[in-house]
Amino acid sequence: MFSDMPVGIFDSGVGGLTVMKEIIKALPEEHIIYLGDTARVPYGGRSSETVRRYSVENAAVLVSRGIKLLVVACNTSSAVSLEVLRKQFSVPVIGVVEPGARAAVEMTRRKKVAVIGTETTINSGSYETAIKAIDESIEVFGVACPLFVPLIEEGWTEGEIVDLTARKYISLMNNSVDTVVLGCTHYPMIKHVISRIVNIPLIDSAIETAKEVRTVLEEKNMRCSGAGEKMRKFLVTDSADKFARVGERFLEYKISDIEKIDLVG
Amino acid sequence: MFSDMPVGIFDSGVGGLTVMKEIIKALPEEHIIYLGDTARVPYGGRSSETVRRYSVENAAVLVSRGIKLLVVACNTSSAVSLEVLRKQFSVPVIGVVEPGARAAVEMTRRKKVAVIGTETTINSGSYETAIKAIDESIEVFGVACPLFVPLIEEGWTEGEIVDLTARKYISLMNNSVDTVVLGCTHYPMIKHVISRIVNIPLIDSAIETAKEVRTVLEEKNMRCSGAGEKMRKFLVTDSADKFARVGERFLEYKISDIEKIDLVG
Repeated sequence: MFSDMPVGIFDSGVGGLTVMKEIIKALPEEHIIYLGDTARVPYGGRSSETVRRYSVENAAVLVSRGIKLLVVACNTSSAVSLEVLRKQFSVPVIGVVEPGARAAVEMTRRKKVAVIGTETTINSGSYETAIKAIDESIEVFGVACPLFVPLIEEGWTEGEIVDLTARKYISLMNNSVDTVVLGCTHYPMIKHVISRIVNIPLIDSAIETAKEVRTVLEEKNMRCSGAGEKMRKFLVTDSADKFARVGERFLEYKISDIEKIDLVG
Repeated sequence: MFSDMPVGIFDSGVGGLTVMKEIIKALPEEHIIYLGDTARVPYGGRSSETVRRYSVENAAVLVSRGIKLLVVACNTSSAVSLEVLRKQFSVPVIGVVEPGARAAVEMTRRKKVAVIGTETTINSGSYETAIKAIDESIEVFGVACPLFVPLIEEGWTEGEIVDLTARKYISLMNNSVDTVVLGCTHYPMIKHVISRIVNIPLIDSAIETAKEVRTVLEEKNMRCSGAGEKMRKFLVTDSADKFARVGERFLEYKISDIEKIDLVG
């Protein structure tokens, strides 16, 4: 049955696993297949055209395995590829930027929102565009935090170094903002650190994206009905070992069913 | 005159500028042209075949502009591309691994050497191979320090965060070593921090590579004889702005003559 097919998720690397984790939490009965394009990570520095090509290639692999819905769990891809993916594939396509932007618009009272993310995401202005598309009067302040991803991938998500780093970045934030969007799929891993420093609501794009997946599956009557064991399948384009090692910290779940695939780079 | 042609240097990004800086110090009368393949940085995660192809493309651009000697100021390229570059181009080719390895062999008394570098460089074992090719009895201990590059590129080369990070990595180092090789072209930027923590000699591959360039130019009678202004030309494959901004910190020299070129990726 179509509704028993898995939800497909792709990201350039391990970051999207925070999105997968929230989808499992919100929709434990769903089968999931995740593709991490680890051979071509990071997408950040690449041209929009290249990112679109990579995104279509990733989506094609997932669609060929049979999926009922596609989640683009990569900020860079979400910013530039949704349109082409929706044109080329018939499954519903959900990105990570819009759900986070929408939640920020609902949350802010003073109409001043901060977005933290990688340099590429902040420079692209993708959250600003998405927020202003809903409410043009909202001011958006982007703060690039290039050290968070390597800190998180190194596993240094507790202690003095991550604490000092977060304080340094947060000191760059406009202090009239009343809402902060975690604009990078890695950042939920240090949400506890950021929360201790800022005293305003944090929008977690992973949680918001999972809510959106549930809404769309319900609207389209595509919730998985079957009982029994659930698929948790992983495809990677580079070393499976490193992905599993770092990924298990992100997912808080044992990564066993993992397969290396080849995508032309 | 052939000897008045510039020395060509390429790297995947800004890191190789520490090598250029040492070459300027050692050989101020030489013209220099530097190519930073910033659109395709980092080379670390890519296959050897891809790195070799990128290296040949970079070298071809520099050779077509007219150079008398090529410096491969990128650890990943140096580890896998020297042979193909020497086969395909007639100019002398110098990498960054061999000069650093040679200096470490000369320095160590206890025959125990630590190499610090990116995860890719350490996993590749390139310094270990180069050191053992000279003296097989030397033990080499690699320590990957993935946070150093982003810290340096962020400009956080002083203060508590870089200090704590360096202490954490150095605590992972075998404490019987008597020599440390800075196995990444970025690391000279935090040599002062590392020196304060370890009390043993540091081998700076940038300085060693510059010495090697002088030796080869002298042996081949190719030292620049001309007086007057010296060429300091930069080619980049992505945004010139960011390269100039970050690069000037590395080079301690104003980057003005910069040109964006296209390389098919």
